[in-house]
Amino acid sequence: MASDTRKAVRPGGYAVEQKPSSETPVSIQPDTLALKQKAEEEGLETIWERFAAQQPECGFCQLGLSCRICAMGPCRIDPFGDGPQRGICGADADIMVARNLARMVAGGAAAHSDHGRDLVETLLAVAEGHAPGYQLTDLAKLDRIAAEYGVAPELPPLTKARELALAMMEEYGIKKGHLTFTKRLPATRLEKWQALGITPRGIDWEIAEMMHRTHMGVDNDPVNLLLQALRTALADGWGGSMIATELSDILFGTPQPAASQANIGVLKADQVNIILHGHNPLVSEMVVRAAQDPELLQRARELGAQGINLVGLCCTGNEVLMRKGIPMAGNHLVQELALITGAVEAILVDYQCILPSLGDLAACYHTIFFSTSPKAKFPKATHLAFTPETGEALGREVVARAVENYARRNPERVFIPASPVQQFTGFSVEAILAALGGTPEPLLEAIKAGQLRGAVGVVGCNNPKVTQDFGHTTLTRELIARDILVLDTGCAAVAHAKAGLKVPEAAELAGDGLKAVCRSLNIPPVLHMGSCVDNTRILALVAALAQALGVDTDQLPVAAAAPEWYSEKAVAIASYAVASGVFTVLGVVPPVLGSKTVTEVLLKGLTQHLGACFAVEPDPKKAAALIIRHIEEKRRGLGLEARGV
Amino acid sequence: MASDTRKAVRPGGYAVEQKPSSETPVSIQPDTLALKQKAEEEGLETIWERFAAQQPECGFCQLGLSCRICAMGPCRIDPFGDGPQRGICGADADIMVARNLARMVAGGAAAHSDHGRDLVETLLAVAEGHAPGYQLTDLAKLDRIAAEYGVAPELPPLTKARELALAMMEEYGIKKGHLTFTKRLPATRLEKWQALGITPRGIDWEIAEMMHRTHMGVDNDPVNLLLQALRTALADGWGGSMIATELSDILFGTPQPAASQANIGVLKADQVNIILHGHNPLVSEMVVRAAQDPELLQRARELGAQGINLVGLCCTGNEVLMRKGIPMAGNHLVQELALITGAVEAILVDYQCILPSLGDLAACYHTIFFSTSPKAKFPKATHLAFTPETGEALGREVVARAVENYARRNPERVFIPASPVQQFTGFSVEAILAALGGTPEPLLEAIKAGQLRGAVGVVGCNNPKVTQDFGHTTLTRELIARDILVLDTGCAAVAHAKAGLKVPEAAELAGDGLKAVCRSLNIPPVLHMGSCVDNTRILALVAALAQALGVDTDQLPVAAAAPEWYSEKAVAIASYAVASGVFTVLGVVPPVLGSKTVTEVLLKGLTQHLGACFAVEPDPKKAAALIIRHIEEKRRGLGLEARGV
Repeated sequence: MASDTRKAVRPGGYAVEQKPSSETPVSIQPDTLALKQKAEEEGLETIWERFAAQQPECGFCQLGLSCRICAMGPCRIDPFGDGPQRGICGADADIMVARNLARMVAGGAAAHSDHGRDLVETLLAVAEGHAPGYQLTDLAKLDRIAAEYGVAPELPPLTKARELALAMMEEYGIKKGHLTFTKRLPATRLEKWQALGITPRGIDWEIAEMMHRTHMGVDNDPVNLLLQALRTALADGWGGSMIATELSDILFGTPQPAASQANIGVLKADQVNIILHGHNPLVSEMVVRAAQDPELLQRARELGAQGINLVGLCCTGNEVLMRKGIPMAGNHLVQELALITGAVEAILVDYQCILPSLGDLAACYHTIFFSTSPKAKFPKATHLAFTPETGEALGREVVARAVENYARRNPERVFIPASPVQQFTGFSVEAILAALGGTPEPLLEAIKAGQLRGAVGVVGCNNPKVTQDFGHTTLTRELIARDILVLDTGCAAVAHAKAGLKVPEAAELAGDGLKAVCRSLNIPPVLHMGSCVDNTRILALVAALAQALGVDTDQLPVAAAAPEWYSEKAVAIASYAVASGVFTVLGVVPPVLGSKTVTEVLLKGLTQHLGACFAVEPDPKKAAALIIRHIEEKRRGLGLEARGV
Repeated sequence: MASDTRKAVRPGGYAVEQKPSSETPVSIQPDTLALKQKAEEEGLETIWERFAAQQPECGFCQLGLSCRICAMGPCRIDPFGDGPQRGICGADADIMVARNLARMVAGGAAAHSDHGRDLVETLLAVAEGHAPGYQLTDLAKLDRIAAEYGVAPELPPLTKARELALAMMEEYGIKKGHLTFTKRLPATRLEKWQALGITPRGIDWEIAEMMHRTHMGVDNDPVNLLLQALRTALADGWGGSMIATELSDILFGTPQPAASQANIGVLKADQVNIILHGHNPLVSEMVVRAAQDPELLQRARELGAQGINLVGLCCTGNEVLMRKGIPMAGNHLVQELALITGAVEAILVDYQCILPSLGDLAACYHTIFFSTSPKAKFPKATHLAFTPETGEALGREVVARAVENYARRNPERVFIPASPVQQFTGFSVEAILAALGGTPEPLLEAIKAGQLRGAVGVVGCNNPKVTQDFGHTTLTRELIARDILVLDTGCAAVAHAKAGLKVPEAAELAGDGLKAVCRSLNIPPVLHMGSCVDNTRILALVAALAQALGVDTDQLPVAAAAPEWYSEKAVAIASYAVASGVFTVLGVVPPVLGSKTVTEVLLKGLTQHLGACFAVEPDPKKAAALIIRHIEEKRRGLGLEARGV
């Protein structure tokens, strides 16, 4: 399978992925392959046809060597060295590549952080009594987070929530000048940031400054640009994303381990099917509530349905899976195929990673495509605008309209080509610590003893450049076989679930040490930690382990990988991971190869300052080898027994 | 000359500018032409060679039809309709073009607003006693602005300044939720924004939300994207830029009319020449102070120089010209040529529009290239990091090192090919009102009487796509000849000055009505209102005129034009102008022609909601005709005498 992600030598002699050939499958997942086949039979276009139509992609853009930042251009730099080596302003390849990458980080950080902002606004609305249907669910967590923000402990919950919301708003601004959650880190990490000038000050501030610095004629030093990109990413990881995670827990409950299911088989031929898609749980939690409404259930039965079946997609799916056990229909590349089952009464989306093609596909069936965020409208969608005030009513309206829509379903077009796979979910940091008896000690002891070699976050997206889920599952199988615990989020988590890696029985695939740990705790070797903003759970866990060991984060035997990433958010996540001391391997080449300077800074130069850097390795078995070597090196660094270094 | 900006039919049948041919001059300005000749003789590359080398530019990027927002692509849409009509995600041409344009606005708004942030930080440092050398210069303006922000009037100046700085910081955040300066506008304008959902809430907030909404899979409605782009631009115009202008006045003095000079002849062959370049006056004001230091002057004389000669470039030049009468060496396309005079001991830059080629050129002479902003480093620059604490010392160091560097000048390479042209500057809103006797009434009376037909802001950059300064000066001559008062800022202001349009005698070129007004007030027909952040002075004047007449801004006989724009900031400025009710004509086609929807919204669709829209007209005489017709229509709408409509 390694040949699926084939390489070709491109300008500059660098390796760039190419489309899998027509003989290689688009996915390793049977449900995807079966529905892709149905799409072809019905003459429906999906992402893979559009991907094929875009080949060959522009080599300048792939290498980061095109610039559209001003209207003197557009400009391009010739990677062969024959044509122009500077843009019209005089920017060379290093500057151009660094600016383009920095803007990707700004886009990704903005996405996560604006998601966090919606949670802050809703928390305030709850506290002020303007958000019917929403409530403070985890009061103990409210207490803990409010204490981190210096809110007086004796306040009653709603007042405390209000103070916390207002304090978190300050993290987006410029008056406060630091991010509270960074205090979770060891002092040595904060000192490294200070030395580099990358301590994040305010969430929106860093994003805006990044956009300023990438304007024509501002920052023209590639390293200085990359440092601000890291600062912007840190404002995401320790700011916007972490706020999103923690407030979602307060509002909707901190995840606890639970059983659920995965793959397209979670759709039910005899029920009203509603898909919850996007990233933010604010609306979907209200749909979950409305779907239990006896009146609506009764109406569904009147129309011949056996019930109302909610399923998740992508990270909104992860959110409601983690907290409510809602089964997971699929990840990024499944979103179009889910509609092609013909069994979906409604798909509800909030924002991020939602293909604008969904409207066309929904229109080919009876499916209603509900968009809900005023920030994210889509062609051919039915828009119901979410606000904290309207969320509860909106949730009910979606379910009610989906139920009525069941009558329009054409059973002859229904095709649900899989049986669901079991999975376990809900491994918040709190849940992991609880499973360990309330302290990280047992985990650290297992690592010290060598029973566990270390832990790796396998996270990120799907990308049609990679055979779907091949990167995630191949890497993860290699890691667990070497006694490395895998923590997952996002589309990677869905890939693992569909592949059956998230049940305790999957411990059979693990090495002897990890197998024993899994059996003693009755956990899978791959722990689901949530959605992509929930990568901050992994950050928080890493920080807690470092504090417990009295070392800096980069000394831990941990790593991260994004084998199939596609989004700007992934660039931001990978960047905050590295800046937080976590070695991170990307399976898709970012558009940086046009600059030797930028490439070398990312792959090597950061290490001496941050103790971590990026690697790029499309072959997941080779990526596993890199990670295993890294973990053993870190073990040796800690004075632990280390293998084959 | 109209044929300089030639048109060719490109994909989709739209007109796109092309490079002037080898027979057409790069500039209308003799100093530029002479120095360009010297550069060629010395074998030095300037922006025009790089521009030529980039031809033909990528047609996809020119039309806005390429997307690099995620790593599934890059994608392109075929404007001929034969190839792909959607990106891999499913985004069509409308979505792609709208996202790309929206990110340009975000970049421009971020640049201006981050500039404003530096002023806020410095004001706070002054108030807290941490900014030696800086002071509160215009206390009356401090009182007025503080009153707008609700700061208690009885506070002593430093306390008041502190409260104002803290209040302005809130404008960047998310807690406050509105921008104070928008209260300057008529209620009807604010209602139009409310109806469209484009009332700006926070400066960095809008930028971050714009970046979120342009992430893959978020906002996929081109109109919804354009509305947020307008909101982001308004957060610039009525937020970051206006803060920059008003605080610069408080710290360094509100401009008053004064005489100065323009063109490269302001450099002195027998003096130590220091160029002040960029956009923010914070460092340059300290250089202005240091250049008067008797010790440094003495040292200059010891080294054989007759004095220390400061000159400006671009908008830092406009800032110190407006307030201190520092002569202006040139605009955007002069920055490289200024070094080629061989007469420059030091060029000091802050940020924005600074060509990264300056380091190479400085190295070809004896020139020291000082960069000063930690946000903006450049190849081959000597970096002295500005902070409010260090600014005064930094200014002195720059002057001292420039003086010493005079000894390294090679007089044989010095070539200053022009005699300076006289100009008048300093027309802040306060100065204009004072000239009118303290009230806008005389101006309004002249407009009502038809003596003045109206007023137009001619603003914006240079762009090598246009023969330098041809667009600005041709348009302005047409307008003043038709009794339309021209207000200018930025590179346009420099173009007008060099062309001799900014002396009272230029009233000879005006129509009879404007001529009489100029003579009675002893003013030029073209009033210099400052740098590009100072377009907010024009905004404030427009708002004041509308309030005085009891109408909305879009009812006034006013317009704006950016005949030679190049930057993202210009896109933000044009967008806030239109959203503020001001019809705006662009002389360079923005990268939107790939989308009929986006193009039509900008050129027509906005009018019904905002009373204003964009026009694109590369021929400045035709642009003048559009503007004249618009102004006469607005006159008719107000019940005033109107010509030829």
